[in-house]
Amino acid sequence: MKLAKKDILGIKDLSVEEINLILDTAESFVEISTREIKKVPTLRGKTVINLFFEASTRTRTSFEIAGKRLSADTINISASTSSVVKGETLVDTARNLEAMNPDIIVIRHSAAGAPHLLARMIRQSVINAGDGFHEHPTQALLDMMTIRNKKGGFGGLKVAICGDIAHSRVARSNIYGLKKMGAKVAVAGPATMMPRDMDKMGVEVHYHLEEAITDADIVMMLRIQTERQNQSIFPSLREYSSYFSLNKRNIGLAKKDVIVMHPGPVNRGVELSPDIADGPYSVILDQVTNGVAVRMALLYLVTGGES
Amino acid sequence: MKLAKKDILGIKDLSVEEINLILDTAESFVEISTREIKKVPTLRGKTVINLFFEASTRTRTSFEIAGKRLSADTINISASTSSVVKGETLVDTARNLEAMNPDIIVIRHSAAGAPHLLARMIRQSVINAGDGFHEHPTQALLDMMTIRNKKGGFGGLKVAICGDIAHSRVARSNIYGLKKMGAKVAVAGPATMMPRDMDKMGVEVHYHLEEAITDADIVMMLRIQTERQNQSIFPSLREYSSYFSLNKRNIGLAKKDVIVMHPGPVNRGVELSPDIADGPYSVILDQVTNGVAVRMALLYLVTGGES
Amino acid sequence: MKLAKKDILGIKDLSVEEINLILDTAESFVEISTREIKKVPTLRGKTVINLFFEASTRTRTSFEIAGKRLSADTINISASTSSVVKGETLVDTARNLEAMNPDIIVIRHSAAGAPHLLARMIRQSVINAGDGFHEHPTQALLDMMTIRNKKGGFGGLKVAICGDIAHSRVARSNIYGLKKMGAKVAVAGPATMMPRDMDKMGVEVHYHLEEAITDADIVMMLRIQTERQNQSIFPSLREYSSYFSLNKRNIGLAKKDVIVMHPGPVNRGVELSPDIADGPYSVILDQVTNGVAVRMALLYLVTGGES
Repeated sequence: MKLAKKDILGIKDLSVEEINLILDTAESFVEISTREIKKVPTLRGKTVINLFFEASTRTRTSFEIAGKRLSADTINISASTSSVVKGETLVDTARNLEAMNPDIIVIRHSAAGAPHLLARMIRQSVINAGDGFHEHPTQALLDMMTIRNKKGGFGGLKVAICGDIAHSRVARSNIYGLKKMGAKVAVAGPATMMPRDMDKMGVEVHYHLEEAITDADIVMMLRIQTERQNQSIFPSLREYSSYFSLNKRNIGLAKKDVIVMHPGPVNRGVELSPDIADGPYSVILDQVTNGVAVRMALLYLVTGGES
Repeated sequence: MKLAKKDILGIKDLSVEEINLILDTAESFVEISTREIKKVPTLRGKTVINLFFEASTRTRTSFEIAGKRLSADTINISASTSSVVKGETLVDTARNLEAMNPDIIVIRHSAAGAPHLLARMIRQSVINAGDGFHEHPTQALLDMMTIRNKKGGFGGLKVAICGDIAHSRVARSNIYGLKKMGAKVAVAGPATMMPRDMDKMGVEVHYHLEEAITDADIVMMLRIQTERQNQSIFPSLREYSSYFSLNKRNIGLAKKDVIVMHPGPVNRGVELSPDIADGPYSVILDQVTNGVAVRMALLYLVTGGES
Repeated sequence: MKLAKKDILGIKDLSVEEINLILDTAESFVEISTREIKKVPTLRGKTVINLFFEASTRTRTSFEIAGKRLSADTINISASTSSVVKGETLVDTARNLEAMNPDIIVIRHSAAGAPHLLARMIRQSVINAGDGFHEHPTQALLDMMTIRNKKGGFGGLKVAICGDIAHSRVARSNIYGLKKMGAKVAVAGPATMMPRDMDKMGVEVHYHLEEAITDADIVMMLRIQTERQNQSIFPSLREYSSYFSLNKRNIGLAKKDVIVMHPGPVNRGVELSPDIADGPYSVILDQVTNGVAVRMALLYLVTGGES
């Protein structure tokens, strides 16, 4: 089976079949990263440009490793060294890159919709590595892969997503995906971090962590952006963590075999207590490992690969 | 035929035969970037260092892609992360890199003559990727390649180069090259942006855009550096663009089959109106595509490749 | 013979046999960098991450070239673009990278002990590329390789190390290594730059350059960090260089066949006069060349390579 899409822009656009195709393909790539020689010639002679307008270690590194393990040529462009500083529009940057004949452009941008604009403008494949508060599809796919691995599927699962829902592209992409795949989603966060129309997305909305995580199969904690402290979204880290931290006390409300997820980087002691982050429930590092496999799968599929 | 030169420092030093050799070789490389597998083993095991003391997306990316498509190992060094910050001289940086046995150093530097100093100091090949207000030979070569492609040659052509002539290494390199190849060059710009001895370079000097572009076969618009606005070189962007912008009205003065060029990044609505930048006359994206081919050709030729 | 160590953290931990194994292996790699095709498939499919929390051109470039000449995939992460800015702990960064299945992490960090912490946390090999004022083992190994090349061994040699001993990880690693290998070490520097317990390391301590370099076979000058001038460690560069610069006058005190070393980047006219830096005694560029070979050897040995 092939992916009938040029681009990966958001989970909203993906069908259940497409998500399954991506996750199945990713599963088949996991093993490559455990070999002595972690490299296959699949994408030899393909050019992948990582165009990052926002700083990111893990996502850029994950894509770069994914590309290299498939033998693609990878080129990194970061905003600080790019001609963005010279005032070029995104469209012009895109068309210029297009003219150099890459095969895939992976883009992270602070503006929601930037990857979509790019994808309409250029003939090559675009993969959204996070756009503003909008979507972060590769993160949601690696999250879903991790859940499927650990739970065998999605049907009947309760997933609690907790924290700054309003400013989280991770939450948004996961809600789209998990609902599609048949899971039930509950969200929890302070009122200032909860979008108004949240219930329209078909999720349970809570303002107390405890309510959301009760009987949850999966608890997904979001990173709190500590720099928002001075923007009157929340009074202090201490107050935030006293109400919205997952810890040894409240984890007992979830199912016995709950798994705890986090997109990273973790603020230890803020949204997650260290004993939970490093404890037996945590699958945070599985998420990272699966991230490389999911990105390998996407690079492979958007260039016409068959599963 | 081989290039009997260790370095590519400026168009001023190149003969007509050498320019033709480079353009012919570049033509033969264009096709590689359109293949399914865009990679040939030509420079396998060669090390190319991109040493950029000034930020640049497109030139660095173009060189990096060119190197990778020829299977060279490419290493990027940018000023911000380099030991330049530790006060090392350019000569010491060069000799240190030399001692690591690269094959080619591509250098961009804000000081005119920096690549020449480097080339004298080290035994490896040096390619000038832009030095101060002096030369930008790879840009001029890709411009000449584009002109030759579109017009079949240079003889009898009128090329108008318009904008901040004084601070443009692109203008300088193109004037040297186009004159050598038999084209006629006219320049236009405000008096504050025109070098005094311009007529000695054998070009027509104009202070009105309209005069220069009349009957032109090629109009090459230069990027205005908007940050110079406060340096009293020009009063305002608005005033500048009202006199020195190429647009739907004045383009009619040029030949019917005029082509419009720009080294990028374009300031839309300043030196170039959007309808011209994106219109049928524009060959701006051909320039970018040819840039990769020209750089492949240069990397190939300076390491002893034969056309 | 194989290296029975997962990591290279410091010279202090290496035995004489291990140092000889590394130097012998490095010797065998020197020739690769002089070939037409400077590349062997030894580490194909291995992933090397260069994780630099401090800026460095030469060390990072040297490791990157070493990795590429062995056909490894190399990934650069620098602090400025990493999620360190997002407040992640080093341990979390490490574990996240570990989860992406690299083979080797090369780390430079301003905190002494950072590589050791990393090495304990992750299952992959860690190579210390400089940690605070603690150790810089790859530099000491390339220095020892250079000495062995030039002098045929270490026994009976007098090595003078001069400058800011207290803040030099290069000095520390060299003292450990040279003493182990049978050389005699003398250090010289102003009292404010001399650690109190220096004599416990088994070296001669001097406060005058002339005393230390008298009859020396090797003079190793350290880089003075000019930015310390305002930290009242020394009054002025001029005063420092009048007492602690190696120059044409005082070099005569050393042995006739003395060699002069410097880890770079050199402050010309401060710790080293230009005629000495570029003169016949200087082996500074041999050090750089040997650096690539030593790093190739280490990448090879820590991944299980046999000499």
